[in-house]
Amino acid sequence: MANVSKKVSWSSRDEDPAQGEGTPLLNGANAARYTRQFSGSGIFHIGRLSTVDLEEENVEEEGSILSRPKEIPHNEKLLSLKYESLDYDNSENQLFLEEERRMSYMGFRCLEISRWVVCGLIGFLTGLIACFIDIVVENLAGVKYHVVKQNIEKFTEVGGLSISLILWAVLNSAFVMVGSIIVAFFEPIAAGSGIPQIKCYLNGVKIPRVVRLKTLVVKVGGVICSVAGGLAVGKEGPMIHSGAVVAAGVSQGRSTSLKKDFKIFEYFRRDTEKRDFVSAGAAAGVSAAFGAPVGGVLFSLEEGASFWNQMLTWRIFFASMMSTFTLNFFLSIYHEKPGDLSSPGLINFGRFDSDSVEYNLYEIPLFICMGAIGGLLGALFNVLNYWLTIFRIRYIHRPCLQVMEAMLVAAVTATVSFAMIYFSNDCQPLGPDQSEEYPLQLFCADGEYNSMATAFFNTPERSVRSLFHNPQGTYNPLTLGVFTLSYFFLACWTYGLTVSAGVFIPSLLIGAAWGRLFGILLSTITSGGSIWADPGKYALIGAAAQLGGIVRMTLSLTVIMVEATGNVTYGLPIMLVLMTAKIVGDYFVGGLYDIHIKLQSVPFLDWEAPATSHSLTAREVMSSPVTCFNRIEKVGRIVDILSNTSTNHNGFPVVPRVNENNEPGRLCGLILRSQLIVLLKHKVFVERAHSRLKQRRLQLKDFRDAYPRFPPIQSIHVSQDERECMMDLTDFMNPTPYTVPQETSLPRVFKLFRALGLRHLVVIDSENRVVGLVTRKDLARYHLGRHGLEELQLAQT
Amino acid sequence: MANVSKKVSWSSRDEDPAQGEGTPLLNGANAARYTRQFSGSGIFHIGRLSTVDLEEENVEEEGSILSRPKEIPHNEKLLSLKYESLDYDNSENQLFLEEERRMSYMGFRCLEISRWVVCGLIGFLTGLIACFIDIVVENLAGVKYHVVKQNIEKFTEVGGLSISLILWAVLNSAFVMVGSIIVAFFEPIAAGSGIPQIKCYLNGVKIPRVVRLKTLVVKVGGVICSVAGGLAVGKEGPMIHSGAVVAAGVSQGRSTSLKKDFKIFEYFRRDTEKRDFVSAGAAAGVSAAFGAPVGGVLFSLEEGASFWNQMLTWRIFFASMMSTFTLNFFLSIYHEKPGDLSSPGLINFGRFDSDSVEYNLYEIPLFICMGAIGGLLGALFNVLNYWLTIFRIRYIHRPCLQVMEAMLVAAVTATVSFAMIYFSNDCQPLGPDQSEEYPLQLFCADGEYNSMATAFFNTPERSVRSLFHNPQGTYNPLTLGVFTLSYFFLACWTYGLTVSAGVFIPSLLIGAAWGRLFGILLSTITSGGSIWADPGKYALIGAAAQLGGIVRMTLSLTVIMVEATGNVTYGLPIMLVLMTAKIVGDYFVGGLYDIHIKLQSVPFLDWEAPATSHSLTAREVMSSPVTCFNRIEKVGRIVDILSNTSTNHNGFPVVPRVNENNEPGRLCGLILRSQLIVLLKHKVFVERAHSRLKQRRLQLKDFRDAYPRFPPIQSIHVSQDERECMMDLTDFMNPTPYTVPQETSLPRVFKLFRALGLRHLVVIDSENRVVGLVTRKDLARYHLGRHGLEELQLAQT
Repeated sequence: MANVSKKVSWSSRDEDPAQGEGTPLLNGANAARYTRQFSGSGIFHIGRLSTVDLEEENVEEEGSILSRPKEIPHNEKLLSLKYESLDYDNSENQLFLEEERRMSYMGFRCLEISRWVVCGLIGFLTGLIACFIDIVVENLAGVKYHVVKQNIEKFTEVGGLSISLILWAVLNSAFVMVGSIIVAFFEPIAAGSGIPQIKCYLNGVKIPRVVRLKTLVVKVGGVICSVAGGLAVGKEGPMIHSGAVVAAGVSQGRSTSLKKDFKIFEYFRRDTEKRDFVSAGAAAGVSAAFGAPVGGVLFSLEEGASFWNQMLTWRIFFASMMSTFTLNFFLSIYHEKPGDLSSPGLINFGRFDSDSVEYNLYEIPLFICMGAIGGLLGALFNVLNYWLTIFRIRYIHRPCLQVMEAMLVAAVTATVSFAMIYFSNDCQPLGPDQSEEYPLQLFCADGEYNSMATAFFNTPERSVRSLFHNPQGTYNPLTLGVFTLSYFFLACWTYGLTVSAGVFIPSLLIGAAWGRLFGILLSTITSGGSIWADPGKYALIGAAAQLGGIVRMTLSLTVIMVEATGNVTYGLPIMLVLMTAKIVGDYFVGGLYDIHIKLQSVPFLDWEAPATSHSLTAREVMSSPVTCFNRIEKVGRIVDILSNTSTNHNGFPVVPRVNENNEPGRLCGLILRSQLIVLLKHKVFVERAHSRLKQRRLQLKDFRDAYPRFPPIQSIHVSQDERECMMDLTDFMNPTPYTVPQETSLPRVFKLFRALGLRHLVVIDSENRVVGLVTRKDLARYHLGRHGLEELQLAQT
Repeated sequence: MANVSKKVSWSSRDEDPAQGEGTPLLNGANAARYTRQFSGSGIFHIGRLSTVDLEEENVEEEGSILSRPKEIPHNEKLLSLKYESLDYDNSENQLFLEEERRMSYMGFRCLEISRWVVCGLIGFLTGLIACFIDIVVENLAGVKYHVVKQNIEKFTEVGGLSISLILWAVLNSAFVMVGSIIVAFFEPIAAGSGIPQIKCYLNGVKIPRVVRLKTLVVKVGGVICSVAGGLAVGKEGPMIHSGAVVAAGVSQGRSTSLKKDFKIFEYFRRDTEKRDFVSAGAAAGVSAAFGAPVGGVLFSLEEGASFWNQMLTWRIFFASMMSTFTLNFFLSIYHEKPGDLSSPGLINFGRFDSDSVEYNLYEIPLFICMGAIGGLLGALFNVLNYWLTIFRIRYIHRPCLQVMEAMLVAAVTATVSFAMIYFSNDCQPLGPDQSEEYPLQLFCADGEYNSMATAFFNTPERSVRSLFHNPQGTYNPLTLGVFTLSYFFLACWTYGLTVSAGVFIPSLLIGAAWGRLFGILLSTITSGGSIWADPGKYALIGAAAQLGGIVRMTLSLTVIMVEATGNVTYGLPIMLVLMTAKIVGDYFVGGLYDIHIKLQSVPFLDWEAPATSHSLTAREVMSSPVTCFNRIEKVGRIVDILSNTSTNHNGFPVVPRVNENNEPGRLCGLILRSQLIVLLKHKVFVERAHSRLKQRRLQLKDFRDAYPRFPPIQSIHVSQDERECMMDLTDFMNPTPYTVPQETSLPRVFKLFRALGLRHLVVIDSENRVVGLVTRKDLARYHLGRHGLEELQLAQT
């Protein structure tokens, strides 16, 4: 059975071949070589290789899918060759070293200060964006609910509520349509929460267009529309992506999209520095979303950093602080309480009073139980969403279909909500300290309101807060049960739509609902003993369990929850619950983000090599033979090799002289495609091989100006005369690339590669001759499956 | 001017040469080679090398010091050769690889589970120890205060209070004498808080005897005595050290001191695994001390880890959780409120009620001001303590002198406290909700008590809590001012005494006192506006500022403070304050722990190479020539080289065959002294060089059994016949050591070394021949001083 690989939405369309991103490293034939059988040990689970079309647009036609109905695209068993790596290792060539040596101590101090300034700016701008989203969503949703409420009230008495339903559904669909159209047609990478993409970026994978200005604009617009459109989504996840984009933009001191260069921060124009700032941006995003600066730092570290650096951590912390402070400050002005800094995030769980937060030892087993339930429900959510995503990959890949699905979901959400409210007769008295902004009376008596409506007729953030804090008796168990069930499926259907939206808040809402239900049932069973009095406590624990079961973060999520509740007393139960949820959930299926990363076939590197991979050595893992360049190389050969689309290599070992019988040469450096392209563009040639004429000296600035969108080789014209010239690579290559001997075990190679964030690792023999090259895909291929060590297939998906 | 280097107390006495620890790597002559002048760039500040006596006991005699009164021992400009490195890089030799390959997937799962079990045990035991310390201290101090209080009350009316003073001073001195004697005579490494030592251990420096059972016992006994003895110390810092010792013990499944081997966890008997557990232990210690599990994790990561691993972090987190939970649980039983888990740490700042924790935007500049004050006071504290430490190193290095100093400080502390209480006439009414356990009436009217006495006549933890929570008007400004001043100097004098004690609580207490004073003055100036009403808020901020100014941690300290207060509302101000304190303090002098590490001349590696060190390459940094072994080496040569005390190398590159004219050979492996010792001990010899006879096969178990106390070479007898035999190192050497070319810049070498936790890094030429070896001391030598890049001197201190 041949596997069919399909393109996935992240970057499937709008791919600009001129960007030099997403170029394949190996062609189909090379990919085939990767799947050689390991006959010896027998521990490998070998999947047969499918020949994958390079131009698979035709496969995506529905006709061809229908003609092969039995073939399920097992994308999680493939590894895409489309993704390039980022370069976290500085190319310490002559130019770089000269610059560093020229720089005085004061110069380094200034650099350090500008890093702090950039981080401050990142925090400030991220906070502003969060503030903007919050205010716009609040107003749009306010107008919508106001209109619908008036309409419902009008028709409750005269009959004809179906008109209200239609009005509600149409309003929702309209919002969602706008949000979906901008995402589907302008920037598909802005879909979803963006957390998987940022995880990949921090892991070292270059996801095309993920940190561009356009992505940010679409993301912000999209999230406003989808939240205002009443989908079961949150606006918190996208903040993380927004923060990362802000960071990538600010730190470069220019916008390539807007063609504006401020001529500042030029030193930061390389992957190493940029990644550090992107971590800070992601942290600032978390911080703004949840008012959790420490949680933000931990999120960045848990998801991204492999090398923990104290100074970097402090800068990330500073960005987080700035972000939550900015949001807080501007929101306090907006809410006309200037200077009141007590609601630091987009979501605020409200204050848990010290008196109500007590818990007792014998409640801990209950909490652990809830953690297990959260793990189970989370796993169910993930499995359902996984199937749905596979379905979407196969059938819903056209922008117009995607927009239609989004609109459908919006209409269904409105209908379900309406039906729930309509059929519920859970009337509650309208107290004097009424916290609901839009209480719906419907068929309740005067002075009462419909309790189900508070859960649905509200932004999800407010519903979460109601579930946490409303006094006992606000909800009846049936209401909560039905709500949990319906919202669970709605949220599951919604995640993965072509809209910008996060899954944090819906997860919290589902968990809070069943948690509160759990609390109510418990107090019924124990005849309402006073310590079970507060169902809000169980709502909080349930929310943590459900979210943990879906996303499977532990440390950072604990801190985020603690910071969002503003009270550390629940720290220990939340930890226990998250751990339990993770252990239970991991037994069945991975976390939601990991599932989506795998479905994109991203070459994601785990923290460690698979445990049982000591039997593999660099010799078996590496790609070989390697295309090497001479230290002084003919321009024609460079152009030919770079133009060869079948071997689209990105890094080339440099040897003193490639000899005729193709024996490997001694390694003397490593040069990147991007560097060669800049050299070719500036025509850094000499006439003859041993000419003493100085080549035109390039500055590091020339490389930095071209970063990160290096032109493709096709756009560079090299005349026939120039092809005969020579190029001296000595000053531009990295003379000290990291190397490993052939006998090195895979875990050892992995450790070196991961700890230093490498892109190319040269494999040498005992005489320092180049015998192979290890890249990210060579390492990411191996993973531990149910049947021991498995090898993923490489394909041009 | 020749610098005189002096021995320092950490491990100056009781050094057991048979442990193979603390053996010098280079002798004095080699050290001289290190200080060659860099004439080219002129950026080096060269200190002239002093010839340092190998046996400097005579220099320590006071006579010789007096004869050279002008020579101040600049120990922070030296790097001791006494300290060895830990080996965080697995030696992936044949034995290791075979074991790993034999192990099934289930085997790795079991290992992973046992790691969790070990972490759980670490947390549990650390919590128990904390519980034990807490209960014993509380009872001892209770008895003491009770006796003294009765005595004071008796003599207040009849006169003759000086008898009370004497009683108090004698009681204090007696406690401190016991604590000091066990530290000074039995285990000097148990002195102080142990945090600098654990920092060094996690950094990769082998501090002799730091994680032994004896150290733990002395530490626990010492801290009980010094806290009960009324010194200005806390019991929190030592918990971190205790946790680390527990971790190192439990994870090895045996006690070398007790000669008891449980035959479990044998896989963990190497530095790599042990360090991971020690991080968990340190985190568990912080967690127990402050009830701050997240803070504990961050502390471990901020101080220790260079490679952040998600699974490891979760295990550390689990250990932290267990620890705080265990402490909490047992203390709740002890306090007869079983199941009440609301006081999770040794220190508990008490609950800050939500109503009183509001702060406003315009208070932020005030907080930053306080941060600056804290930074200044912290720097003053550190400078004074630095001078004091230098004084102690020179004059107070004999155990009996050290004990006498400790007793003197105890007596002076009691006297100062008594004088303060005696001369203060700050009487406060004894309210109904009186929280003081030992209110002293003294000369106050009936129904009143002496307010100064609450600050002094109490354990420091309780005093901190009073300062945070007592209602407005409890203290008058003069009382607080005088208290701050006297306690500042007492605490400064106390830190560095030969007793087990921490500096966290005294710092918090000083800060809380001046912070509260600040708050009171502020409310006086602003005529008592209602928002300034709560001086407890300023006490908290002051405490954070003072502690931050002294220890200079930011991220972990923020989280610790937040977790200890149980309320995240103060998160942002605490962060700002800690950042400010750090920036201001760093301008003058380093953190207290760093000062002490430098004074011990420990080769501590920073996070990054000095900024301006790109001009140095591996060629200039490395040690050469290198002693290499042949793959098949003569036993006699191995014994001779290992026995050579002048070149006490620990790692030896292996080459196929050392040729006659001493040309460097091609690198084919690396073998450690410890491995050779085990091989010699087991007499793994063959008769002739090319004999096909199989050598006796050793198991990894043999190496693990010898770990970590490998016998010295002197204890191994090799007969004359055996000297002529050969040893085949192939199976035992690490065949794939990490290497760098000679041209690699220092920052690049540093990054590789630090990220992977290496001990030896082989420098090779372009043909893979060994030309040098880089070790920790080669890298730690370079640091950025006031005059640019400086090079520390290596010496046998």
